[in-house]
Amino acid sequence: MHLPGKVTVVEVGPRDGLQNEKHAVSLETKVALIDLLADAGLKTIEAGAFVSPKWVPQMADSAAVFQAIGKRRGVTYPVLVPNMKGFAAAQGVGVTEIAIFGAASETFSQRNINCSIAESLERFAPVCEAALGSGIAVRGYVSCVLGCPYEGAIAAEAVADVAEKLLKLGCYQISLGDTIGIGTPGQAQQMLDTVAARVPLDRLAVHFHDTYGQALANVLACLERGVTVVDSAVAGLGGCPYAKGASGNVSSEDLVYMLQGLGIETEIDLAALCAAGRFISDALGRAPNSRVNQALSGKEN
Amino acid sequence: MHLPGKVTVVEVGPRDGLQNEKHAVSLETKVALIDLLADAGLKTIEAGAFVSPKWVPQMADSAAVFQAIGKRRGVTYPVLVPNMKGFAAAQGVGVTEIAIFGAASETFSQRNINCSIAESLERFAPVCEAALGSGIAVRGYVSCVLGCPYEGAIAAEAVADVAEKLLKLGCYQISLGDTIGIGTPGQAQQMLDTVAARVPLDRLAVHFHDTYGQALANVLACLERGVTVVDSAVAGLGGCPYAKGASGNVSSEDLVYMLQGLGIETEIDLAALCAAGRFISDALGRAPNSRVNQALSGKEN
Repeated sequence: MHLPGKVTVVEVGPRDGLQNEKHAVSLETKVALIDLLADAGLKTIEAGAFVSPKWVPQMADSAAVFQAIGKRRGVTYPVLVPNMKGFAAAQGVGVTEIAIFGAASETFSQRNINCSIAESLERFAPVCEAALGSGIAVRGYVSCVLGCPYEGAIAAEAVADVAEKLLKLGCYQISLGDTIGIGTPGQAQQMLDTVAARVPLDRLAVHFHDTYGQALANVLACLERGVTVVDSAVAGLGGCPYAKGASGNVSSEDLVYMLQGLGIETEIDLAALCAAGRFISDALGRAPNSRVNQALSGKEN
Repeated sequence: MHLPGKVTVVEVGPRDGLQNEKHAVSLETKVALIDLLADAGLKTIEAGAFVSPKWVPQMADSAAVFQAIGKRRGVTYPVLVPNMKGFAAAQGVGVTEIAIFGAASETFSQRNINCSIAESLERFAPVCEAALGSGIAVRGYVSCVLGCPYEGAIAAEAVADVAEKLLKLGCYQISLGDTIGIGTPGQAQQMLDTVAARVPLDRLAVHFHDTYGQALANVLACLERGVTVVDSAVAGLGGCPYAKGASGNVSSEDLVYMLQGLGIETEIDLAALCAAGRFISDALGRAPNSRVNQALSGKEN
């Protein structure tokens, strides 16, 4: 296997994970989780979303969370920003990186953010301009890259279109998300190849949900193609734990275990990462949705 | 990715899975499960073990199970056999294939079957001779191929030694088992390469437990090396009784989903396989330990 020597893990649990929790997670818990993740060596930790609290009540305290976390030197804490209003709020508390999000599926775009793909990109253009003008980095997401809950299969060219447009808007990196966790490794590679023909591979990240148990195999397939940035969520946060059949992001613990086993440098302390996963899982009143965390916790007892 | 066009899935749930269950599973349930698996298109279904009921009480009724299952044309129902006594009992009910099991770890061999690796192979020699003389096929297992709960790391050459000896005893196929589910894809490939230098690749199968969530990624890595036979257990049944926090075999549903997504022929009906997984999970009073089964079941409701 030809694999990269180093991989950056982007921790999305505090945002992509917690935004889907049915029950409120306290400010203190969010802050403690983010600080534990930084202690574990994560260098990019998505800290929240400056979106309407009407739509995503779980992220209503993102400004307070961002202000309270211990800003570690060398650690970036991006936040999701949907529009100029969100950007102003994020800028107001001093964020240094934002994330914007497009979809590769028209129907998903309409249902998720109430506008077409083209409209969403138009809305992001002034946000990117303002951010870049203020020295704030912008990361882009493309969702539904391997399938859409409404449209089914998604053409890889549609993914490449959106990714290229996000790049042109000034995103330093584009994260390709299998939002519904439906893809398999060959599809992941083919999609990646199509996108990489139009966006340099070193500007791409991958983001897999584990709904069908394929996430880690998909990551492996993308590493073999040279991807060096992978999103994951501690304790496998995300999805809708109370909705039958849904599951979260690939767990950071299982990902880091694989990367370390492959001899790939991550600069992450797996034991400390597992501790962070147990902390948030205890707060949520359930076991970590991570086999590695469960196995290592079992050994300690 | 260079992948095989066709893969044979060896279903081990009724044996490797159910042998670890704390609570008794009825004869009727075992028979119904095996018949459902055959209906789903599985062509090799491990049906039981002719071992001492003192050591493995869950397999005490294997003779009755074997006699009661509907023997489908083209389906093989191997049973585990540890010695001549077990072989005689298996032969008595008309089995057409047996499986024998060695370990790549001396300590595991001592603790699991109370003898050295060399002694275990000596014990298997007359069993193989008798089986092959009666036209009964013999499959071999090597356990602990990527690590041992007592010894830690296991040298790939030690795996190759045992695999080669099992081949020489007359096994038509050797299944390489990561019993404690600790390996990662690079280690799996390296171990496979070492064994394949001494045993033809087309005589090898892989057998991963998912304790650390690596099983499907490990399968993918081995498929890329050309392996065409993969063991799995419906509903992710199984688990290693020696390690707390351990979990079962890679689930057949997740495996078949990946194989189908990769365009690899399996001749298995995924919906029927999921139904079999839900049947045994209902009988055990828990959800299937398979993301695919949970996701597809969620969709139906």
